[in-house]
Amino acid sequence: MSIRHDGRAADELRPLSVNRDFPSAAPGRVLISAGDTTILCTASIDESVPPWKMNSENPTGWVTAEYNMLPGCTSPRKSRRVDGRATEIQRLIGRSLRSVVDFEALGPRTVTVDCDVVRADGGTRTLSITGGFIALVDALQALPSGTIDLQRVLLDSVAAVSTGVVAGEAVLDLDYVEDSSAEVDSNLVMTGRGLFVEVQGTAEGRPFSAEHLNEQLRLGKLGIERLTALQREILGKNWPLDTMDSSC
Amino acid sequence: MSIRHDGRAADELRPLSVNRDFPSAAPGRVLISAGDTTILCTASIDESVPPWKMNSENPTGWVTAEYNMLPGCTSPRKSRRVDGRATEIQRLIGRSLRSVVDFEALGPRTVTVDCDVVRADGGTRTLSITGGFIALVDALQALPSGTIDLQRVLLDSVAAVSTGVVAGEAVLDLDYVEDSSAEVDSNLVMTGRGLFVEVQGTAEGRPFSAEHLNEQLRLGKLGIERLTALQREILGKNWPLDTMDSSC
Amino acid sequence: MSIRHDGRAADELRPLSVNRDFPSAAPGRVLISAGDTTILCTASIDESVPPWKMNSENPTGWVTAEYNMLPGCTSPRKSRRVDGRATEIQRLIGRSLRSVVDFEALGPRTVTVDCDVVRADGGTRTLSITGGFIALVDALQALPSGTIDLQRVLLDSVAAVSTGVVAGEAVLDLDYVEDSSAEVDSNLVMTGRGLFVEVQGTAEGRPFSAEHLNEQLRLGKLGIERLTALQREILGKNWPLDTMDSSC
Amino acid sequence: MSIRHDGRAADELRPLSVNRDFPSAAPGRVLISAGDTTILCTASIDESVPPWKMNSENPTGWVTAEYNMLPGCTSPRKSRRVDGRATEIQRLIGRSLRSVVDFEALGPRTVTVDCDVVRADGGTRTLSITGGFIALVDALQALPSGTIDLQRVLLDSVAAVSTGVVAGEAVLDLDYVEDSSAEVDSNLVMTGRGLFVEVQGTAEGRPFSAEHLNEQLRLGKLGIERLTALQREILGKNWPLDTMDSSC
Amino acid sequence: MSIRHDGRAADELRPLSVNRDFPSAAPGRVLISAGDTTILCTASIDESVPPWKMNSENPTGWVTAEYNMLPGCTSPRKSRRVDGRATEIQRLIGRSLRSVVDFEALGPRTVTVDCDVVRADGGTRTLSITGGFIALVDALQALPSGTIDLQRVLLDSVAAVSTGVVAGEAVLDLDYVEDSSAEVDSNLVMTGRGLFVEVQGTAEGRPFSAEHLNEQLRLGKLGIERLTALQREILGKNWPLDTMDSSC
Amino acid sequence: MSIRHDGRAADELRPLSVNRDFPSAAPGRVLISAGDTTILCTASIDESVPPWKMNSENPTGWVTAEYNMLPGCTSPRKSRRVDGRATEIQRLIGRSLRSVVDFEALGPRTVTVDCDVVRADGGTRTLSITGGFIALVDALQALPSGTIDLQRVLLDSVAAVSTGVVAGEAVLDLDYVEDSSAEVDSNLVMTGRGLFVEVQGTAEGRPFSAEHLNEQLRLGKLGIERLTALQREILGKNWPLDTMDSSC
Repeated sequence: MSIRHDGRAADELRPLSVNRDFPSAAPGRVLISAGDTTILCTASIDESVPPWKMNSENPTGWVTAEYNMLPGCTSPRKSRRVDGRATEIQRLIGRSLRSVVDFEALGPRTVTVDCDVVRADGGTRTLSITGGFIALVDALQALPSGTIDLQRVLLDSVAAVSTGVVAGEAVLDLDYVEDSSAEVDSNLVMTGRGLFVEVQGTAEGRPFSAEHLNEQLRLGKLGIERLTALQREILGKNWPLDTMDSSC
Repeated sequence: MSIRHDGRAADELRPLSVNRDFPSAAPGRVLISAGDTTILCTASIDESVPPWKMNSENPTGWVTAEYNMLPGCTSPRKSRRVDGRATEIQRLIGRSLRSVVDFEALGPRTVTVDCDVVRADGGTRTLSITGGFIALVDALQALPSGTIDLQRVLLDSVAAVSTGVVAGEAVLDLDYVEDSSAEVDSNLVMTGRGLFVEVQGTAEGRPFSAEHLNEQLRLGKLGIERLTALQREILGKNWPLDTMDSSC
Repeated sequence: MSIRHDGRAADELRPLSVNRDFPSAAPGRVLISAGDTTILCTASIDESVPPWKMNSENPTGWVTAEYNMLPGCTSPRKSRRVDGRATEIQRLIGRSLRSVVDFEALGPRTVTVDCDVVRADGGTRTLSITGGFIALVDALQALPSGTIDLQRVLLDSVAAVSTGVVAGEAVLDLDYVEDSSAEVDSNLVMTGRGLFVEVQGTAEGRPFSAEHLNEQLRLGKLGIERLTALQREILGKNWPLDTMDSSC
Repeated sequence: MSIRHDGRAADELRPLSVNRDFPSAAPGRVLISAGDTTILCTASIDESVPPWKMNSENPTGWVTAEYNMLPGCTSPRKSRRVDGRATEIQRLIGRSLRSVVDFEALGPRTVTVDCDVVRADGGTRTLSITGGFIALVDALQALPSGTIDLQRVLLDSVAAVSTGVVAGEAVLDLDYVEDSSAEVDSNLVMTGRGLFVEVQGTAEGRPFSAEHLNEQLRLGKLGIERLTALQREILGKNWPLDTMDSSC
Repeated sequence: MSIRHDGRAADELRPLSVNRDFPSAAPGRVLISAGDTTILCTASIDESVPPWKMNSENPTGWVTAEYNMLPGCTSPRKSRRVDGRATEIQRLIGRSLRSVVDFEALGPRTVTVDCDVVRADGGTRTLSITGGFIALVDALQALPSGTIDLQRVLLDSVAAVSTGVVAGEAVLDLDYVEDSSAEVDSNLVMTGRGLFVEVQGTAEGRPFSAEHLNEQLRLGKLGIERLTALQREILGKNWPLDTMDSSC
Repeated sequence: MSIRHDGRAADELRPLSVNRDFPSAAPGRVLISAGDTTILCTASIDESVPPWKMNSENPTGWVTAEYNMLPGCTSPRKSRRVDGRATEIQRLIGRSLRSVVDFEALGPRTVTVDCDVVRADGGTRTLSITGGFIALVDALQALPSGTIDLQRVLLDSVAAVSTGVVAGEAVLDLDYVEDSSAEVDSNLVMTGRGLFVEVQGTAEGRPFSAEHLNEQLRLGKLGIERLTALQREILGKNWPLDTMDSSC
């Protein structure tokens, strides 16, 4: 018997769907949904580098991200005001994507991954990372043949998922209802090879025990494995990481 | 033989498509495309009125709009910085939608129509109005039965289209390529009953003749009639304007 | 019998007066009044071009405008906060002045026309254009002899006037009282040769008919012809457009 | 033989002229010139008090000032950006005007004196105070008869003048040329009764001696006496300070 | 043999010193140093609650934090510009302190803990939490006797420490030199009772293994136990948590 | 019998203490207290000049200052918002320090003196100058030997003190209680050689007499002499002004 309001098992992800044909002028464009949470991730490539990289003789590339909630993503409507939370989230997305990119192999260009939340029902920051990686790969694949060696640019894949403690029990991939009543709210960013990029666990209200931390880490690892498999299936022939087969 | 780069006749609109099932938390949600230009219009209703209306004893309602370009809507990527152009456009969208709404019948509530440009290929401000009206109607129809009398709230329908003079010839519904080389850039906002809400004609570069003004007004009127018919077809049973049949 | 509160005929302008000796450090300086509306227009010339023009090898010139309301221009006092309306207006003034200037003949310099509203009684944006053109000409005439060929720099003259529909009747050059109760508010920017630079008609409240649009266009054209004659008289020997004689 | 570039004696003011009929919607409006420096001072009265005074049961009035340089006031053109200097100056103007006003007698209303510099040739802050006082008096005199008792509201008159040390000699009322090369730049704000409101002396570059301080205080006092006489003459029957006759 | 540049063992904290007599007007004031990192933590109490709590009939209290780097805290000098990093850090400090406070027992008052970095040598965010708790306790103890029941307001103590992976080895409490070359940068916030408030582990550059995560958690727990003992010793009779003896 | 609430004579300074070993990364660091007022002054040197000095072929140096109040410096807590007062004060501090520096001898480098108010009890701007000079000297002395010739860089010492009129009597070095009830608030900045850098006298409320101005100048001069002697004693062997011995 499920303890979750939507009938999921504690270790069950929400259904994931991805549309890579969404109208956009960006070379990487992904409309990704996990349950009701939907994000538009677009990846654009600019053939220049940030000012602070320009002084170098052979400047290497850069990957950055912006996170934004569209007003209709929540009810009541969300105002367009940028706040500290959005800044914090886009720093996380940028760090996560950069952790699997070799800037030297990328060469003197900047990839900007924009994550605009179309509908928010919990887990927008982690879905931005999972979808952002797909948009990043598609944008890089769309570069003229011979521009970069994608096998060298991408060192690994990256995905993210939330975990939490709800009503005393650790669960995977919280929606908004669970998030609102969670005692602990955690986010895990990991690579397809099973390495950690970011571990964040936050007590909402009261502090939590070591047991709850460990159980969340176990669930999160499970979720990332499934998300990685889905990313690979979605990207199909665009999946650039042949040598990862055995290590997953 | 067409003079237009995409083979359209001078008085031909781009193909229009509308998706009213787009993921969103807003009661009115429309993803509208005219050719490659695509806008996400969401309409949210707040059961309160702006501060400057609060002092009144029986405050009437209000309709406002916000216009925003998503970074992936153009290539190269558009920065998120709000500029004077966006402010000017959202004032036009708001005025246009307000021109067909009876604020007393609407009662003490505010409808905010958000127009986020997903892909920009010319005519984003006019498509925002055409799509914004559909989102507005859907949001009002979604109010609990008996909250408002929609026949009284909506006095007419409203739509908008651009015209211009390209290579010396007046044309309807310019895309970005035409817009970039147009000698005149005009926008027409009209109601389903054939009344004018806004007429804007701007010389891009050199001033234009009275003949070019008149020919554009004729083309624009034609375009609005077609857009109104499409709005009605799309809204189907949600179309609130029964008494408009004869006058269209 | 006049329908207007101040006794004017429907096609009658307010009395215009111009002071070109107003204290200022700018080479073009015009204190212009239409009835009670008074604007200080100053035109300054900077021997450089905007950053976005600098990359060109032979950068051409530029004309820009700023619009600002002084606090004492209205009662009650107007706060100095810049709003979207001001931004929209100064974009219109800039576009209008640029439409009669040849940037190549102007050479690598920027003319900034500042329009500071000293007293506001309706029609500030159109009077800014009419007065701004005079300040622009005076500033260009003040350049050292031989710097530019003014006959080539100025292609035409430009002026602007408002029209509207008040109590169901089209009228020319509305003051604040008329503006406040107008059903339609329009602005027409035209050149001395009778070409259109900008046509703007906005329904205030309810949409308007084609007849009202046409009647306003007729009145506006009439007003522009008179304003052009006045500009020419005021500028006297500074009027640079000899070849325009016949076409006016 | 004069040491000054414009032939003035060390203790000579620039010629002062005042226009109290300048177009404006403000009840107090003064275009004041000292030599080429010209300021538009308008005084507006709002029948309310600042938020921080509202909690009081019998809130007393307030006087505030804003200082702004119009772009055409200098050549090259001055950008509209507000800077720390402007903030500092408007605080000084406000303090100076408040020093001669009885807020209890003024009652719960706010007078805002706006000083917009039309032409800047040195001494704009002191001329703003001298002209601002005239605008303040005119605005108070324009209140409906019986609203306030002006004899009680105004305790004294106030005027200001600059002094400085140029080429080693103390001089009165510096213009821009003198200001630019002055070793010391001072401003004196005094009342008609000869009391001090503000004394400011600043070394430009190197520190100065006690002798130079004293000589400037003497010149400044002299200048204030003349400016007070001029204010009185200009205000004529509006001069509210009958009991000051003997003390001037 | 130590692997660390300053000779510390991998599980060794930097020397901690605390000055609670630092000049300040705030009731809680702590100058805390860990090695060269020095923070001024002041805690102020305001007898009101944030606006979003005011609507409640019996509003409960709130604890918030601000984090700021003084310009002299680094060489070269740090500009005063607030950036996203500072916002992120002050949100973490606020969350951490709130996790051990009972807002109902606190009553309708707001405690603001300001953390101004006087000298930055790594670990400023964690030291802000450790020192901020001491300032918070001192400020609460300084309330007039009987105002609150401190045993009920404070549920636990809280402290924080950084860990990382440097040259492939997990270490505790990194200074700036270690931080700059760390492969992983983690922060652990825990309570005196051994519960988790926040777990953050970030790959700097490349992702990290599960072994490195676990070793860091072990070191961090050790560090927190020592910091808690130091906080208790420092607070002496102000330490409010008698019942915690056995559980530590 | 003293007229002052803390028992001081009218011409008595508050006790001064200085700590030059305060933790900081800046080469000049001074924690200075006058009574309860305490300021952290740090001086940092950047080997570059401001943009507006860069065009020169042999750019000379610059000295600038920033003034900031830490939130815990007052009770109730002071918000971090920068206001016009802070801008005005930091301009004064910068001007004062620059008045005793030879920019050519300083060479192409910028000294920034940061004055962060740790505790505010009146006289923060003057104490910032007195302490800022000490930090400036220490920072310059810390430059590698031979970089500059300090005897040429520093032309004089500088210190500042407040005076005022309280209960009708002129007093020296007001604390907050006196400042709050003062009729006149003055600040005097003078050099060790007895020259004036800045004289500021402001009527708080009502204007003041020439007698009160003169008495304040006398007290201020006295205070500066004592502060200069203290600066010299504190700086000891770092005092760079040998030739000043006789003139002090």
